[in-house]
Formats: sequence, structure tokens, C-alpha cells
Amino acid sequence: MAQNVIIVGGVALGSKAACRFKRLEPGSRVTIIDQDRFVSYGGCGIPFYVSGDVSDVNDLRKTSFHMLRDEAFFKNCKDIEVLTRTRVERIDRENRQIHILREDGSTDALPYDQLVLGTGSRPRRLPIPGADLPMVHTASNLNDAQAIKELVTNGKVERAVVIGGGFIGLEMAEALADMWEVETSIVEYTRQIMPGFVSSMFARMAQREMEKNGVRFYLGEQVQALEGADSVKTVVTDKRRLDADLVVMAVGVTPNMELARDAGLTIGPTGAIAVDEHLRTSDPAIYAGGDCAEIRNLVTDQPGYFPLGSMANRQGRVIGTNLAGGKALFKGAVGAFAVKTFDAALAGAGLSIESARKAGYDAVSVQAAQLDRAHFYPKKSMLHLELVVDRHSRRILGVQGFGKDGDAVVGRINAVAAILEDHPTIDRLSNVELAYSPPFSSAMDALNALANAAENMLDGRFQPIDAEGFAQKWSQGNGDLMILDCRARQDGEAFAEKYPERWINIPQDELRQRFGEVPRDKDLILLCNTGVRSYEAQLNLRELGVENPVSVQGGIVTLKECGLDL
Amino acid sequence: MAQNVIIVGGVALGSKAACRFKRLEPGSRVTIIDQDRFVSYGGCGIPFYVSGDVSDVNDLRKTSFHMLRDEAFFKNCKDIEVLTRTRVERIDRENRQIHILREDGSTDALPYDQLVLGTGSRPRRLPIPGADLPMVHTASNLNDAQAIKELVTNGKVERAVVIGGGFIGLEMAEALADMWEVETSIVEYTRQIMPGFVSSMFARMAQREMEKNGVRFYLGEQVQALEGADSVKTVVTDKRRLDADLVVMAVGVTPNMELARDAGLTIGPTGAIAVDEHLRTSDPAIYAGGDCAEIRNLVTDQPGYFPLGSMANRQGRVIGTNLAGGKALFKGAVGAFAVKTFDAALAGAGLSIESARKAGYDAVSVQAAQLDRAHFYPKKSMLHLELVVDRHSRRILGVQGFGKDGDAVVGRINAVAAILEDHPTIDRLSNVELAYSPPFSSAMDALNALANAAENMLDGRFQPIDAEGFAQKWSQGNGDLMILDCRARQDGEAFAEKYPERWINIPQDELRQRFGEVPRDKDLILLCNTGVRSYEAQLNLRELGVENPVSVQGGIVTLKECGLDL
Ligand SMILES: Cc1cc2nc3c(=O)[nH]c(=O)nc-3n(C[C@H](O)[C@H](O)[C@H](O)COP(=O)(O)OP(=O)(O)OC[C@H]3O[C@@H](n4cnc5c(N)ncnc54)[C@H](O)[C@@H]3O)c2cc1C
Ligand SMILES: Cc1cc2nc3c(=O)[nH]c(=O)nc-3n(C[C@H](O)[C@H](O)[C@H](O)COP(=O)(O)OP(=O)(O)OC[C@H]3O[C@@H](n4cnc5c(N)ncnc54)[C@H](O)[C@@H]3O)c2cc1C
Ligand SMILES: CC(C)(COP(=O)(O)OP(=O)(O)OC[C@H]1O[C@@H](n2cnc3c(N)ncnc32)[C@H](O)[C@@H]1OP(=O)(O)O)[C@@H](O)C(=O)NCCC(=O)NCCS
Ligand SMILES: CC(C)(COP(=O)(O)OP(=O)(O)OC[C@H]1O[C@@H](n2cnc3c(N)ncnc32)[C@H](O)[C@@H]1OP(=O)(O)O)[C@@H](O)C(=O)NCCC(=O)NCCS
Ligand SMILES: [Ca+2]
Ligand SMILES: [Ca+2]
Repeated sequence: MAQNVIIVGGVALGSKAACRFKRLEPGSRVTIIDQDRFVSYGGCGIPFYVSGDVSDVNDLRKTSFHMLRDEAFFKNCKDIEVLTRTRVERIDRENRQIHILREDGSTDALPYDQLVLGTGSRPRRLPIPGADLPMVHTASNLNDAQAIKELVTNGKVERAVVIGGGFIGLEMAEALADMWEVETSIVEYTRQIMPGFVSSMFARMAQREMEKNGVRFYLGEQVQALEGADSVKTVVTDKRRLDADLVVMAVGVTPNMELARDAGLTIGPTGAIAVDEHLRTSDPAIYAGGDCAEIRNLVTDQPGYFPLGSMANRQGRVIGTNLAGGKALFKGAVGAFAVKTFDAALAGAGLSIESARKAGYDAVSVQAAQLDRAHFYPKKSMLHLELVVDRHSRRILGVQGFGKDGDAVVGRINAVAAILEDHPTIDRLSNVELAYSPPFSSAMDALNALANAAENMLDGRFQPIDAEGFAQKWSQGNGDLMILDCRARQDGEAFAEKYPERWINIPQDELRQRFGEVPRDKDLILLCNTGVRSYEAQLNLRELGVENPVSVQGGIVTLKECGLDL
Repeated sequence: MAQNVIIVGGVALGSKAACRFKRLEPGSRVTIIDQDRFVSYGGCGIPFYVSGDVSDVNDLRKTSFHMLRDEAFFKNCKDIEVLTRTRVERIDRENRQIHILREDGSTDALPYDQLVLGTGSRPRRLPIPGADLPMVHTASNLNDAQAIKELVTNGKVERAVVIGGGFIGLEMAEALADMWEVETSIVEYTRQIMPGFVSSMFARMAQREMEKNGVRFYLGEQVQALEGADSVKTVVTDKRRLDADLVVMAVGVTPNMELARDAGLTIGPTGAIAVDEHLRTSDPAIYAGGDCAEIRNLVTDQPGYFPLGSMANRQGRVIGTNLAGGKALFKGAVGAFAVKTFDAALAGAGLSIESARKAGYDAVSVQAAQLDRAHFYPKKSMLHLELVVDRHSRRILGVQGFGKDGDAVVGRINAVAAILEDHPTIDRLSNVELAYSPPFSSAMDALNALANAAENMLDGRFQPIDAEGFAQKWSQGNGDLMILDCRARQDGEAFAEKYPERWINIPQDELRQRFGEVPRDKDLILLCNTGVRSYEAQLNLRELGVENPVSVQGGIVTLKECGLDL
């Protein structure tokens, strides 16, 4: 009954599947084959190695108990054979064997009973002139990592340009700018960072945090060429030329599916290997997972592509179980993510407002700002949350968060990520139970408040305007515009004095008595600190017959965090 | 259509219900009646006011935007009338009116269309001699809070005894010991702190953290009397006499259900007011919620009692909605909680192992220890988690956590709390999707690992022994005992030298070669740092035909955190 299992690719998916399987079937033989010299490393740690948070590159290859995961480790600890520097060239499904090519040029055919494809992904490279110049790197494996780190530690980099404002681009930019004080710019083709992951406003919040720490951004710009003689010197975009002695390309990844495709396995619509819920490919003797495979998006119920290390690990274990005859399921993913941006964090799960609309939903979103713990507790930070919902069904499609306390942000996102696959409606989140104690949360937690705000909006009680809508009206300088500031006098009066034409301050608790002062012929925008009093004021005014005003969601703290200068 | 709504009790439940209802039906009249002089305060903040974290008691009465929530606030901001110092004596359901008694002795009858009972709870007082002595306080409202704070700030307290090791007792003890350096002891009747909430081992972890900060514990001791002349001087237990110039009784709360009971409303088996999923009592014109009401325990599906501020707030909003003709549901609770113990935090949701067994489940639990973020990331803490599961169905019954990074602990608990009402099985948690980035979590997060460990245990692959089981065997000094330390030499050798009779060190990666050295006639316990290598070693040994060894779950870090001195 002992089997011969071969695993192609030994970073996260492959090595996890191998280890799990061997625990279940110690009598079977497992071989991991990888073309690289390193296997089983924490690629996600690369930015933190470059930044200096992780001092030795080998720390990314070690267990928490400090053992280096090299070939000997797999042999001695796991009884798994690892062949590095060996490329799998072809799968011969009929004869159940693979053809390999070693670094020394020798070839071989190895038989398998079951095969696992953990071939991962490769970084995309823009097809532009100069893309192959020295000092142009991707950040995808330890070889890249070492090369980049060596450059910065040797003081060879004064100016760096990171192409791509996704999470890897942001992390690499922070790594370069923070510790090494490299003058770092990010060029991003779309008009915001983290496109597809967060709304433009939440993107702005993270961007501003990075700008405060010296990173520059060129958004909505296309890199057209890289120039230089011995090595890269200039990044040419459609709008400008940027000096650079290091370029990091972080423009996404492409699944390594060619091996599978050439063997006739089904490739899915995302371009990655199609698998079923047991992570089996179209050939029952072959499994695939991690960055080379496509899984279900549990929010849209469509095929999805989630090249994330957490997926690879959990999928690897499922494959390990199933190789041993188990029936473990991997249903798909909701796409939870987190990225640290200096002292802040941006995180989310499910769809952003833009991606929800792109996916065909009649989606709306609401933003809320609230302290991440009891407001009377001394240590606290403002937490910004956005909830994306389907207007008609009230289903939650996604959630995003930004704040200065990363664990608090991520904790809220994870509570939603945990339920998102059930297609919950907002009432579930209105009452989601979070452990409450003043040092950690609020009696009505920010997540509950967020869902309640969504409900109020959908019920037509809360008519919000967001920071972008506000900025637009504000800058149009329309004479009809009037900000009704519902904060206390000590907060609102200065603004009313600064903008006498378009700003009045009537504290919410004085609104009923001072109703006569409310301008009736104006384009009225209600504003307070976080949006609670302006919502209350909106209801007060409606009671008094004034139906038209909108209320700034997330209040003035959100306007400020989005960079509005008032 | 305008209604007259009366709300009895105006702290959390009552004031929330009132505010929400008024937003939905501004034309209706709402009156809050409370016997106290304060309403709408954060009782949960009392320990932090006593500790000095909150400097002014009025900060517990303020909104996040610094408005004091007194009678004028409710009038001006909310158009709600508040009658303080007014006791509701009787409900006349037939005539839909209540009878009130004012502080000045005057009485009145007020009519209602709908009535809300937010009468809350009162602290239990032990029926022992001396319980009424001066300087014996409970910590249940702002009057107590001010009295206690005045005593400590005036240096009147050198020694304090807190009776009760529940979360309020712990918080009060920390408040006294931390800032004011009061010599503080906790006396608890059961053999552990937080009884019913966490296992004895997790209780020990939090206890030790508090002991390190100077708090003393007397567990399994019954307070029999309080002695003193002008004021309390001595706490007499069944085992000792403790000096004290302040005693805080924190021995639980009793629902204020007498008003309801006397009006003939149904009282549930827990002794609190019975309500349906809309939080309606047995009289459809009367709602109840918060500390005076009983709700469903969503884990056991039995009536439950959860006197928590977060419940009161969320229930208050549901009542507010339903008063206005809504159909909002409050299904029940899973009992999520968190408590800060100096630099650590203890949190949980659902049942502890003891409470699960008491509830009739064939429950088992597994503990795991893992860093709360990527082990290569510089900032990190050990996270201890315990999962309680029903053996046969593999249903998750509860989860508890302890660690030095409170937000990280609470974040994990909340992700489980969010799904617990669905009666998930452990495979759901094995694959629960958490946002992964090295600064916040691990690729295989501690929660995933916890569920995997539970699966391994239930499948018979992982045969764990816990810290208490280990301590027992260790102290019995049985000659059969042998610890097989699977850690690297630099960690294990010193122990093997210290205990030559009962400790050998064979690193897991050397186990296959050194199999001959494994003692076969001994009571073998496998041990490593967190339990991962000892689990792997257990499988290695089984492969080699050694079936009996157990493996220390959570490893040596758990033994140490539980106070075992090796
Ligand atoms: C800088 C960076 C930061 C990241 N941060 C995060 C993060 O914060 N959170 C997160 O969840 N994820 C993160 N990721 C993503 C994560 O690292 C990947 O999802 C994960 O490594 C995927 O693992 P895998 O085993 O599927 O594939 P890969 O890591 O791509 O490994 C595949 C391996 O297969 C080998 N291979 C391919 N084809 C063959 C062949 N024909 N023959 C032999 N060998 C072959 C490759 O050489 C490679 O070694 C990050 C990635 C990078 C680069
Ligand atoms: C020290 C302390 C710490 C806490 N920490 C936490 C925590 O960290 N997390 C958490 O979730 N919860 C915590 N709680 C619990 C939380 O404070 C309560 O659950 C919450 O206050 C309950 O609100 P309630 O409105 O239902 O009742 P209560 O707060 O009990 O208010 C009821 C009010 O009704 C009045 N009343 C009663 N009967 C009558 C009558 N007949 N006529 C007029 N008035 C009447 C009472 O005087 C009282 O003012 C803590 C409590 C304390 C005391
Ligand atoms: C490390 C690696 C080789 C997997 O090896 P592994 O032996 O499965 O490693 P782990 O230590 O996670 O798990 C070992 C076993 O201990 C169990 N375990 C893990 N932590 C545990 C804990 N705290 N308590 C109890 N058991 C635990 C696991 O469940 C597993 O057993 P199971 O799979 O049979 O259930 C693979 O994950 C890897 O190469 N990772 C690095 C690369 C990577 O993840 N990159 C992408 C992200 S940066
Ligand atoms: C404060 C209190 C009077 C309730 O008043 P409230 O007006 O409902 O207070 P809030 O500010 O929470 O909510 C006001 C409205 O703003 C909304 N809101 C709250 N935060 C919001 C945010 N960040 N963004 C948008 N809307 C928000 C709420 O949803 C609510 O509207 P809704 O109920 O119609 O949906 C009551 O909760 C109370 O007395 N609390 C203190 C006592 C207490 O909780 N003690 C126990 C725990 S310590
Ligand atoms: Ca990362
Ligand atoms: Ca508390």
C-alpha cells in the first residue's frame, strides 16, 4: 500500500503537502522537486528582510525553533527527499512519470503514484524597453531578496522606484524608505494604490501614511521604459522621468501552469490550474494548489485567484490529507489580506466597492470611523471601516479597514472574514458578538456600528456623502454649498469664522432651538467629528421638514485622513 | 400614531433603546426613569477609573466627543426625558401604567403604550457577618467607584482584599495594585480564577501574570466573616485571617427582576426575565433586555444569562427598533469575554472544558501555543489557545486564549465568536481564513493550528498530556517516568543533565537514527518547545512501533506559563 508521491515545487504548498502526507502515511515515499536552490522559505518575509527587521536571510528558512529547512532538515525531520536545482520538464500522465532536468544537464524520468503541483507563480515583468537592465529586480524569491538587500546595505541605492502599488510594492517601498532612507517612489498605473482591494479613499489613507514617512507616489502613470547604460538610471513614465538606481517591479504574478497545461490538465478561466474542492486537478492522480491553482471565490461563487501564502499552507495540508485517502475540503476563499504601512495597517476581506460593481453587484458601501476601544481608555486609535453590501439583498460583500493599531484593524477584518463565506446579511454584523472590555473594544464595537450605519443608509435614514463627494463639492466652490457643522462650539466656531460664506456651526444639541438659522435654500452638508452627530442632526432636520441634507460619513476625521485640507 | 414609551433603568440597555427608538419615531414620547442620580454611564470603565487610567469619573458619563450624558443631554440631543432619583415601584399592566416613587417621597402613576425594562442587575453580597461594615464595597456603579477611588487617592488603603476572582474582581485588583500599590489579595471560593470561563490552566496563566505584579491569591477559600469596629479590618476565611482596610466584593450579580415578577411576567430558569427573540416579555407591550433579562445561550441552546455591557447595548438597539414596529431579532449569545490582566489578556467565547462537561457534553479540549505573528517578525508574543470540542460530533463548543498581546488574543477569539452560533465543526476552523501578513499573523495561523491539533487528537494521532497531567506525573516522582525531550541539544541537554534519571534529550531529527536509545519500558512523555516536534516525534515513534508515549500539548512554554518550575 506504500505509495510514491512526487511534489513539484517546494516552497509553501509543496512542502506543506509533503509534510502532512508523511505524517499520515509514514510508510510512503515522498520526493519534493524544485528548480531553485532554496525550498520552504517565507517569501512573505522578503520585505522584512530587506527592511532589516529580519537580519539574516536564513531566518526566512528557519522553523520557529531555529532549524534551517534545507534538504537535510526534510530528510531527518520529515523523511522526505528534496531535489533542488532540478526542473520538472514534462508530466507523462499515461505512464505516471515525470521528466526532470538537473542543473548539471542530466535528465531522468521518475515514476509516481500521485503527483502534486505546487509550481507557484512568477512575478510579472512589464514588457518595456530596459526591463532586463541590471538593478531592475522583482521581489519574488530569496535570490531577489539577497540581491536587493546587498545593494542597499552597501549604500549602492540612493533612489529607488517601485513599479506597482499592490501590497508587495507597498511593503518593498516601506522597506527601502524606512530603514535605509532610500528616496523611494511608487509608480502605479491605476489612480490609487491597492486597486481592487480597497476604495480610493482607503487607499488614500494608507498612501498618506506612507507619504508622511517619505515615500512618493505617482498614480495614474504608466511606466514606458527603463533607461540606463550599465544599469538602470531612469524610469520613464507617460508623464515624467524619475532617477533611480534600483527598480523593483511588483506588478503582480502569473501562475506557473504551463507544466499542467502541456500535460492536458484543465486550466481555469483565471489562467491558473482548475481544481475541485478536494484540490484535485482534472486528472484524479494529480493535485494542485497554492499560487499555481485557481479556487472558488466564496463571495462571488466564481473562479478566483488568490496567490497568498496562507492559502498555500492551508491548501497544502488539505492535499496532504487527501493524498493519504482523506476527504478534506478546501471550499475557496474570501480574500482576506493585510498590509502594514509604517505605523498603520490596511486590511480587508471580500470585495471592495469597485470590485463588487465590476462583478455585477448593485453594490453600495458605507464608511464609519470609531475608536478601536472604549473612548475613555487612554490607549486608543481611530479605526476606519468600510462595508460593501448588495443593495437589494443586504448581503455583505466585503469589508475594509484602516487604522494605526494594526492588530485592532486586522482583528475586526478577521471576524468578518470568518463569516463571509456564509453570505451573511448586515443584520448578522449588527449583532456580531465581540469580546468587550474597555482596553480592547467598545460596548457597541466599530463593526457593529458599521453594520448599523449600513442599515440606516439602506433604510434611507442616513444619506451619506463620502470624502470624495465632499471634496468635489468643496472645491467646486459653488455658492449654494453650506456646511452645517454639528460639533460643539469649541470645535466648529473657528471653521465658521474661517469660511463665513459656506460654514455654520450649530451644535446638534442646539439644533431644535436654533432651527430658524438653518439655511433652507442651500446645498446642505452636515458634518461632525466621526459622523454620529451629523447623522442624528439629519434625522432632527428631517423631523422638522428639511429632507435634502447629506451627512459626511466618517466625519471630519475621515476627511482629514483622506488628506482634505480644511 | 405617536406613542408614549417608558423605560425603566437608564444605564446601557434603557438609554440605548430610548435613543434608537427616538431616531425611528421622533414624534413619540420617551421617558427614562432611574432610581440612581446617574444614568448612561460606562460601568465597565469603573476599574479603569479606580486605576487612574480614567482621571475624572465624569469621563465615564461622556460621549466620545466629550458631552456629559446628563438629563440635559438627553433632552437637547435626543428629545428624551430622564427622571433620575425616581423608583418604579409597580407595573399595572391592566391599566398600562407604572407607579413611581420620587426621592422626595412623592408618588405618581404614569401611563405607557409600551414599556421597557432595563432594570439591570445588582451585585451579590455574601450573607456573612460584617458584610455591612464601612469600607466594604461592591464595584457596581459610579457611587461605589467614587467612594473607592476617594479612599485610595487619599492614601486610606494599604491593604485591600477582593472577594471573587471573576473578571470584575481581577480588574479591581489590578486597579488597586497597579497604580496605587495597594497590597492586594484576591480570595476565591473555587480552586481557580475565572471559574466557568477558562480551564484551570489558563486561569493559572493569568493568575501568574497578576502575581508577578504583586497581587496575591487565596483560591479554594471561603470568606466566612468580615471583622472590624468602625470599618473593616480583617477578612476571615476558612483557612486564614487577612488584614484589609478595604474589601471589594465581586461575587457576581443578581438580575433585578422583581418588578417584572411582581407584575406577573414570566421569569426564566436562570432567574432573569424571560424574553423572546424580539426581546419581548410575556406581555407583548413590555420589552426587557440587558442585565435583567435572560437570553438564549447559542452554544448550548439553553436559556442563558450574560450580564455584559455589549449585550445591553446591542439588545437596547433591537428593542428600540421593535418599539417602532420593527422586527429586529436578538437570537442570543455565545458569551465572548475579555479581561486585561496587567500586560496580558485572557479572553474566550463559548464553553470552557469544565462548563461544557457540566452542560452534559462529552467534551475534550486541546491547547496549543504559537507565536501570534510570523516567528521571524521582530515584535511577537506567545499566544496560548484552548479549543473545547464535542468528541463525537467534532463541534466547537468554545475557545479560550491567553497572551501578552491583548489585541492579538482578542482578535483570534472574536473570529471564533463570530461563527460559534453556527455550531461549526473543527474543519471550519482548520480552514478559517485570516488575513495573513508577517506583522500580524502566521501563514498557518495559531487558530488554524489549534483546530488541526484538535483534529489530530480526535483522530488518535496526537495523544496529548496537559500541564496539570504533566505536573502530577512529575511530582509523583515515579521511577517509571521518562521525559523524552525532542528539542535541539542546546535546549535539551541541560535538562537531561539536571535530571539524569528521568530526562533524555533526543532531538526529533535524530530520533530515527537514535531509536535504540528510546527507553521501551518507561512511562514516556514527549516534550519540546511548543508541542510541534513532540507531536512529530510521537508519530515517528509510532511508526517504529512505540505506541504509548504522550506528548505535552503546548510544550514547555505552556508548562512554564502555568508555573511549573523545571
Ligand atoms: C515579497 C512577497 C511578499 C508576500 N507577502 C505575502 C503576505 O503578506 N501574505 C500572503 O498571504 N502571501 C504573501 N506572499 C505570497 C506568498 O509568498 C505566496 O503565495 C506563496 O509563496 C505561494 O507558495 P507556492 O508554494 O504556491 O508557490 P511559490 O512560492 O511560487 O513556489 C513555487 C516553487 O515551485 C518551483 N517550480 C515551479 N515550476 C517548477 C518546475 N517545473 N520544476 C521545478 N520547480 C518548479 C518554483 O521555482 C518555486 O520554488 C508574498 C510574496 C512575495 C513575493
Ligand atoms: C466594574 C464593572 C466592570 C464591567 N466590565 C464589563 C466589561 O468589561 N465588559 C462587559 O461587557 N460588561 C462589563 N460590565 C457589565 C456592564 O456594566 C453591565 O452589563 C451593564 O451595565 C448592564 O446594563 P443594564 O442597563 O442592563 O443594567 P444596569 O447597568 O444594571 O442598570 C440598571 C439601572 O436600572 C436602575 N433600576 C433598577 N430597578 C429600578 C427601578 N425599579 N426603578 C428605577 N430604576 C431602576 C438601576 O438603578 C440602574 O441604574 C461591568 C460591570 C461592572 C460593574
Ligand atoms: C514548514 C512547512 C515545511 C510545513 O511543515 P509542517 O511539518 O507541516 O509544519 P508545522 O510546524 O506547521 O506543522 C507540523 C504539525 O504540527 C501541528 N502544529 C502546528 N502548530 C502546532 C501547535 N502550536 N500546537 C500543536 N500542533 C501544532 C500541525 O497541525 C502539523 O500537523 P498536521 O498537519 O498533521 O495537523 C511549510 O509550511 C513551509 O515550507 N513553510 C514555509 C514557507 C511558506 O509558508 N511560505 C509562504 C508564506 S511566508
Ligand atoms: C450612548 C447611549 C446613550 C446610546 O446613545 P446613541 O444615540 O444610541 O449612541 P451612539 O452614538 O452609539 O449611536 C448613535 C447613532 O449613530 C450611529 N453610529 C454610531 N457610531 C457610528 C459611526 N462610527 N458611524 C456612523 N454611525 C454611527 C449608531 O448606529 C446610532 O444610530 P442607530 O442606532 O439609529 O443605528 C447608550 O449606549 C449609553 O448610555 N451608553 C453608555 C452606557 C453603557 O453602554 N454602559 C455599559 C458598557 S460600559
Ligand atoms: Ca507581506
Ligand atoms: Ca471590564
